[in-house]
Amino acid sequence: MIDPLATGSQKSDAVRLESDSFGELKVPADKYWGAQTQRSLMNFPIGGEIMPVPLIRALGIIKQAAARANMALGMLEPDIGQAIDQAAQDVIDGTLDDHFPLVVWQTGSGTQSNMNSNEVISNRAIEILGGVIGSKDPVHPNDHCNRSQSSNDTFPTAMHIAAVEEIHHRLIPSLEHLLAALSEKSAAFEGIIKIGRTHLQDATPLTLGQEFSGYAHQLKNALRRAKDVLPALYQLAQGGTAVGTGINAHPDFAVRVAQEIAQSTGLPFITAENKFEALAAHDAIIEASGAMNVIAASLMKIANDIRLLGSGPRCGLGELSLPENEPGSSIMPGKVNPTQCEALTMVCTQVMGNHMTITIAGSNGHMELNVFKPVMIYNLLQSIRLLADGARSFTDRCAQGITANEDRIDALLNESLMLVTALAPSIGYDKATKVAKDAHKNGTTLKEAALKLGYVSAEEFDQAVRPADMVHPKA
Amino acid sequence: MIDPLATGSQKSDAVRLESDSFGELKVPADKYWGAQTQRSLMNFPIGGEIMPVPLIRALGIIKQAAARANMALGMLEPDIGQAIDQAAQDVIDGTLDDHFPLVVWQTGSGTQSNMNSNEVISNRAIEILGGVIGSKDPVHPNDHCNRSQSSNDTFPTAMHIAAVEEIHHRLIPSLEHLLAALSEKSAAFEGIIKIGRTHLQDATPLTLGQEFSGYAHQLKNALRRAKDVLPALYQLAQGGTAVGTGINAHPDFAVRVAQEIAQSTGLPFITAENKFEALAAHDAIIEASGAMNVIAASLMKIANDIRLLGSGPRCGLGELSLPENEPGSSIMPGKVNPTQCEALTMVCTQVMGNHMTITIAGSNGHMELNVFKPVMIYNLLQSIRLLADGARSFTDRCAQGITANEDRIDALLNESLMLVTALAPSIGYDKATKVAKDAHKNGTTLKEAALKLGYVSAEEFDQAVRPADMVHPKA
Amino acid sequence: MIDPLATGSQKSDAVRLESDSFGELKVPADKYWGAQTQRSLMNFPIGGEIMPVPLIRALGIIKQAAARANMALGMLEPDIGQAIDQAAQDVIDGTLDDHFPLVVWQTGSGTQSNMNSNEVISNRAIEILGGVIGSKDPVHPNDHCNRSQSSNDTFPTAMHIAAVEEIHHRLIPSLEHLLAALSEKSAAFEGIIKIGRTHLQDATPLTLGQEFSGYAHQLKNALRRAKDVLPALYQLAQGGTAVGTGINAHPDFAVRVAQEIAQSTGLPFITAENKFEALAAHDAIIEASGAMNVIAASLMKIANDIRLLGSGPRCGLGELSLPENEPGSSIMPGKVNPTQCEALTMVCTQVMGNHMTITIAGSNGHMELNVFKPVMIYNLLQSIRLLADGARSFTDRCAQGITANEDRIDALLNESLMLVTALAPSIGYDKATKVAKDAHKNGTTLKEAALKLGYVSAEEFDQAVRPADMVHPKA
Amino acid sequence: MIDPLATGSQKSDAVRLESDSFGELKVPADKYWGAQTQRSLMNFPIGGEIMPVPLIRALGIIKQAAARANMALGMLEPDIGQAIDQAAQDVIDGTLDDHFPLVVWQTGSGTQSNMNSNEVISNRAIEILGGVIGSKDPVHPNDHCNRSQSSNDTFPTAMHIAAVEEIHHRLIPSLEHLLAALSEKSAAFEGIIKIGRTHLQDATPLTLGQEFSGYAHQLKNALRRAKDVLPALYQLAQGGTAVGTGINAHPDFAVRVAQEIAQSTGLPFITAENKFEALAAHDAIIEASGAMNVIAASLMKIANDIRLLGSGPRCGLGELSLPENEPGSSIMPGKVNPTQCEALTMVCTQVMGNHMTITIAGSNGHMELNVFKPVMIYNLLQSIRLLADGARSFTDRCAQGITANEDRIDALLNESLMLVTALAPSIGYDKATKVAKDAHKNGTTLKEAALKLGYVSAEEFDQAVRPADMVHPKA
Repeated sequence: MIDPLATGSQKSDAVRLESDSFGELKVPADKYWGAQTQRSLMNFPIGGEIMPVPLIRALGIIKQAAARANMALGMLEPDIGQAIDQAAQDVIDGTLDDHFPLVVWQTGSGTQSNMNSNEVISNRAIEILGGVIGSKDPVHPNDHCNRSQSSNDTFPTAMHIAAVEEIHHRLIPSLEHLLAALSEKSAAFEGIIKIGRTHLQDATPLTLGQEFSGYAHQLKNALRRAKDVLPALYQLAQGGTAVGTGINAHPDFAVRVAQEIAQSTGLPFITAENKFEALAAHDAIIEASGAMNVIAASLMKIANDIRLLGSGPRCGLGELSLPENEPGSSIMPGKVNPTQCEALTMVCTQVMGNHMTITIAGSNGHMELNVFKPVMIYNLLQSIRLLADGARSFTDRCAQGITANEDRIDALLNESLMLVTALAPSIGYDKATKVAKDAHKNGTTLKEAALKLGYVSAEEFDQAVRPADMVHPKA
Repeated sequence: MIDPLATGSQKSDAVRLESDSFGELKVPADKYWGAQTQRSLMNFPIGGEIMPVPLIRALGIIKQAAARANMALGMLEPDIGQAIDQAAQDVIDGTLDDHFPLVVWQTGSGTQSNMNSNEVISNRAIEILGGVIGSKDPVHPNDHCNRSQSSNDTFPTAMHIAAVEEIHHRLIPSLEHLLAALSEKSAAFEGIIKIGRTHLQDATPLTLGQEFSGYAHQLKNALRRAKDVLPALYQLAQGGTAVGTGINAHPDFAVRVAQEIAQSTGLPFITAENKFEALAAHDAIIEASGAMNVIAASLMKIANDIRLLGSGPRCGLGELSLPENEPGSSIMPGKVNPTQCEALTMVCTQVMGNHMTITIAGSNGHMELNVFKPVMIYNLLQSIRLLADGARSFTDRCAQGITANEDRIDALLNESLMLVTALAPSIGYDKATKVAKDAHKNGTTLKEAALKLGYVSAEEFDQAVRPADMVHPKA
Repeated sequence: MIDPLATGSQKSDAVRLESDSFGELKVPADKYWGAQTQRSLMNFPIGGEIMPVPLIRALGIIKQAAARANMALGMLEPDIGQAIDQAAQDVIDGTLDDHFPLVVWQTGSGTQSNMNSNEVISNRAIEILGGVIGSKDPVHPNDHCNRSQSSNDTFPTAMHIAAVEEIHHRLIPSLEHLLAALSEKSAAFEGIIKIGRTHLQDATPLTLGQEFSGYAHQLKNALRRAKDVLPALYQLAQGGTAVGTGINAHPDFAVRVAQEIAQSTGLPFITAENKFEALAAHDAIIEASGAMNVIAASLMKIANDIRLLGSGPRCGLGELSLPENEPGSSIMPGKVNPTQCEALTMVCTQVMGNHMTITIAGSNGHMELNVFKPVMIYNLLQSIRLLADGARSFTDRCAQGITANEDRIDALLNESLMLVTALAPSIGYDKATKVAKDAHKNGTTLKEAALKLGYVSAEEFDQAVRPADMVHPKA
Repeated sequence: MIDPLATGSQKSDAVRLESDSFGELKVPADKYWGAQTQRSLMNFPIGGEIMPVPLIRALGIIKQAAARANMALGMLEPDIGQAIDQAAQDVIDGTLDDHFPLVVWQTGSGTQSNMNSNEVISNRAIEILGGVIGSKDPVHPNDHCNRSQSSNDTFPTAMHIAAVEEIHHRLIPSLEHLLAALSEKSAAFEGIIKIGRTHLQDATPLTLGQEFSGYAHQLKNALRRAKDVLPALYQLAQGGTAVGTGINAHPDFAVRVAQEIAQSTGLPFITAENKFEALAAHDAIIEASGAMNVIAASLMKIANDIRLLGSGPRCGLGELSLPENEPGSSIMPGKVNPTQCEALTMVCTQVMGNHMTITIAGSNGHMELNVFKPVMIYNLLQSIRLLADGARSFTDRCAQGITANEDRIDALLNESLMLVTALAPSIGYDKATKVAKDAHKNGTTLKEAALKLGYVSAEEFDQAVRPADMVHPKA
């Protein structure tokens, strides 16, 4: 955790004065932020969770798009607008990340982070234009950087942009990566027949490829779910200004700024159908988190199965070998801890809890504004990031390297008593049951029991009991 | 809560003997169920939550469809099949609900409820064919009613059918009903300008119609969300049998039975793309619950706002009057407790908790089978039912009857200091601020302050300060 | 689910008229309830979850105690009071359960269930005194049954009483029952040395008794946790009346009524320290639910372990045999599905979700009243009941009958490579590692590898590798 | 978020070689960590959440205590032990925080963070003793720093120590601080009579002091809850080693190391009663999180109430004035956004979601080890920190500065119709009702209506209607 109050003074003791309507404040001289950011640093010494970088980047995208839209609509002088555009690009490029020190636990509208972006961009624009940082001249944080905007529409717009970009550029590629690995394993394991397990008890057989096809199908659906939440997130609140009416904005601003954002991001953002809903509720964020929650449940199942199937080396199920990425035990070969499964399942529990946070926060809006915005986007971005990173690491360091212990799989299958069902058509249900009971009682294989009881010859047994015939329907 | 052990003997002491592979058991003579149901009654004296009726009905739909599919594929003799078809219709019609006494807290595969349906339908079919109930002749619960099926594919199929039918026939109409009421109010309140509130603090104005348009938009999205989860639920596990391979089923059974179910329900059910996933994971159920969770968050916001806006009669916000459905206070007129809001918000918290149960349960499948099926569908059906009933009751007894207290709304708007922003263009920012500060300090209206300070005449004030100009963007 | 609107007319069409300040209503003639109950039935056709019986019983306890306190304080005429006392006893005894038809989803203060109890008890008292049911004479539901009370203090008092009684009489005995079974197994399994498993991978050995001692310890703590929440629940809101001030109650009423309740229940109830908190927040209920949540997590771990250890019969871990309570598979002996584990783990997920519901509901109180009372107590009572019933069923039908498969346990232990650590002191770390690697590579036992490599004799191996020396610390 | 892979190279490109059983790895020359830490950095590029500082500090405490215990038991040479002691002190003091770069999403046992501490402390001890960093001589990370320990008992011990220290030194003082502020306000507001609100509707009066006494009581209970979880956390797993048996540890080690930890921390830590439970389950962590969850619910209620009571300035309830910490609106005086309430309620939702994460993670242990340890302690420490910081900031910047708007409170009280109940005794229930209805209909005060109807004189009214008599019980 980071001490936000200390951030400013870490590298330098030099300060300059910045002011807001409350008065003057000392600000670290090497930082672009202004009085409202500094005041927030002082007022919210809570935790150390800094507003996530993708959200900061999204604020840069908005400020740039707003400057462009304002210029196009004749609402902003070109020299000012172009300087803002250039300064915002620095925010987008991430070169000014150190100038966004605010924590998540601030005003529930995210006003202070919006002001942080206004202050940083205006000071950087002033610098570009050769002015004096802190003078608010010729670029004013409110009058120019925030023109046609309110925190109340800007922050939720940033939430949507950040979530969309992270889903698009981070999560979807990662899920595709895992899907490819699981599909490949499913194909590679197509011919390996193994015991099925229901209730954790031995059941009729299936192929290892079929088992992995189930995981791959979960990933295919995960991708569909990740994509399904995008249309609602493409809708941007920008243009609603303070309460959703669009007061103080040009009538064309909402549509225009969404076009600019779509243009610069290459993603099909549009203006929100209803701005009142877009400020007062964040159902689209809850919905997106709900998709993350399902994906987490899917990954939990997959990772859990794989560590069960890889349990051993001697005293577990032992059907799979997982890649060994680090020392499991210095003396015992074969002790490969399923550490990637563990990291991934931990990630899944985090996403599930985050979903609850987001749900509660999202349901608690009051009238024209939901004031749980920062905690909602912090959790959603964490969920997206963790799922993406967790799935990718799991793919690269576990899924891709899984191998089947075919001898073990075969031995278990042949030891199983479930295959007795294949004998019933030829020797009858009663004798088949007797074979199974005898094998169970005496701890032998079915074949041994069947031969001992004299119901079939070895050849007859082998001809009747063919697991390969048991892994698909039959006419 | 119900004592399931007592259920059998409530109306009659007469018994008959039924048997399963564990031996014979006494069963109430007036009940169609058999030994496995009776054994489950004895083995799971837990809580009293009976398996929900829509799930029982769905089992009837499956048994009928399976009989039809088996007959069509030449897998079942027509006389047996038709008797099963007729008996299953009784289950579908709800006339046999008393014969399904099992609780949710049973085998995690729902096997016992599947067997309950097999036992009831076979005995009823035997009765139809003139046989002796309990004889398993000529209709056998396993051999005929369960033919080509396993509990492992039947129960998840029933889960999907029940969820789809409840969403289709109960939830969607109810949400449409509420959407209509909110849209109507939004239109009716179009001309009423009121104070906006952000951070629960006075903000720039909007119309009451705009405020309600936000609620209506949430409902519009709720409907979209309810519908979006259907495609995944239309996919049916039936045909996967024990572990997903389809062992013991005809190769055409899966497709055929889905067609029969689609036919009888009039809903576009299809066979699941991947049966292994369909048995081992229930991501589609988690996804559906996720939609319920967002809808709950939306309704929570709306109901909460409405009770805040209706708070009073004298000491609250008092902008809305809610219908009075029951005595609030025997002596105090106007004390109308927002009881429908309270019922609805309680429902919302239940749905959010249910979602967590479903998520945890859904993430805990092991290998070829998830054994949390009953708890998942119990919670999902409760969520759907409660949202549907809650939204309908709220519509009929609250939303439709909301009226605006226009005098109060007007008074608050005019008392507000936020309107000062409209003065700034004419008298300048500094004087406008002075007006607001003066009004705040002296507890007067803006107009009084402005006149007192001599900045404007009454006419000028009225011309400049027009709330109607503040509820939309302006060029 | 039950159709509450149909409840009244199910058995009889006869009606009588009852009235409240809203007017007259037809009430089923064979029911004691009055107009407010009937009106609630009409106004809340939501779900079918009836207010739980323990809560109804608690209302009976309160009404009786209030009558006694009022009589003692000279606030109620003895004849009226004694009739109320007797009628309330009927409610306590459960003979009037059919007269409490209201659902959970009603007024958030539980007012209607409080009025239901007032109406039923007054009509029953009228009957006892030979009056005309519905006449409110000589016993009035409000004036007499509700004297010195408000729903706002009565309902939370009932919540506490119901929770305490269920924890005391249902949950604690059940947890003690399971603790005894697990402790007994721990003792019985004391001498059975088995492979330990960490990360699901083979680890150093422990005894099966030690493994079960961990479970028993969790239960010991579960009992402690169940008891720890009682003191906060012993504090009763009664006497706070409408907003916590105690308006309309005798100054001694709060203390006196708590004494009466303590007396009649035999449990150390006291009057709440702060009545404002007791009406407006239900932190004690959230706290109690938090204990249920931990207990659920404990039981989840135990039941999950036991089904893993009992997995098989051939292709799982197979260390334990679980009792066979119902047919697992008709043809395959030894397929014992861990159905009690499944029921119990489903219960645990329900309790965890309920906890979330309770938390959200509990955090959403407004000013002087939390209006999520019914949903909170409904969920808490369900959690208590399910944990109690689930743990008892699991004890009786699973835990008590668990047996150890000692041959299998022994075989796994001896196959394990982890025992190589015991060789290191005598032959050195390097040679020991070589033994393990050789055994792993060739699939042999450690002993075979050690002998083959010529590092030790069979006697030396057996003397060095003594699992019994590895299950405790050594000086 | 931080790129953990980049951490090593940020300040310097110089490297040295470190090795583990997997081979050699380049490690930044200016860092004390070794090969296993470096390998973990490479294997888990997931998120950026670094293991929390209090957990790192706790590892330092353990390593020091273990060295002392080992020395005392003759298990470690004094020169080695003392160097470890000194190096561990550096970790405790926080001077080596930069040397702990690992993320939460690693091995579920926390093994890599334990090794990180072993590597850092051994290299630092080597340095102290004049050896070559990376040589493992004369201080070996495993053989010396980890002596008598396993990650499996060390990490859960660190979890308990970190949680206890944070609760003790951070949370409890903060809650005491808020309790003091609320108690002070309760006393200061003792004489201010105000309207009560139930169902958000006007109700009988209470004093503002009484209202705040409810909040103070919640805090008093919060403190009790924070303390109640400590005894279970005082129990330390250390001494259980790999699976709970204590293999490879001296029989006295467990007790002795707990004594050392108690000594150095000044807190009453003891050795855990049952080590199997202490490794395989973390019920004590879930329990502690449950307390945080209740505290969050309490703070949510309080902060929510305060912003409702402070809503306005003109169009809300307006009973309280909250301190103004930053500009709310540049033009509108009196618009004070309740930003501290917003930060605090966001914190509360985070804690509730974290609790769900912890619950799921805690319930998912397998056999001898729960492998969700890092995510559990990360969430618990975040919850403790956020509640502590949030409550303190809320106290200092909001609670302490709350003032009552007595005029407004008085005006609302006198406008209220609820006071009519006080007239009933003198003029009768019917006339009182008529007064209220008349006032409600005509929008007048009760007094105006009563005078107009001629039921009482002004003096009689003032004598009868005395709110001060309505805020306590009366004989």
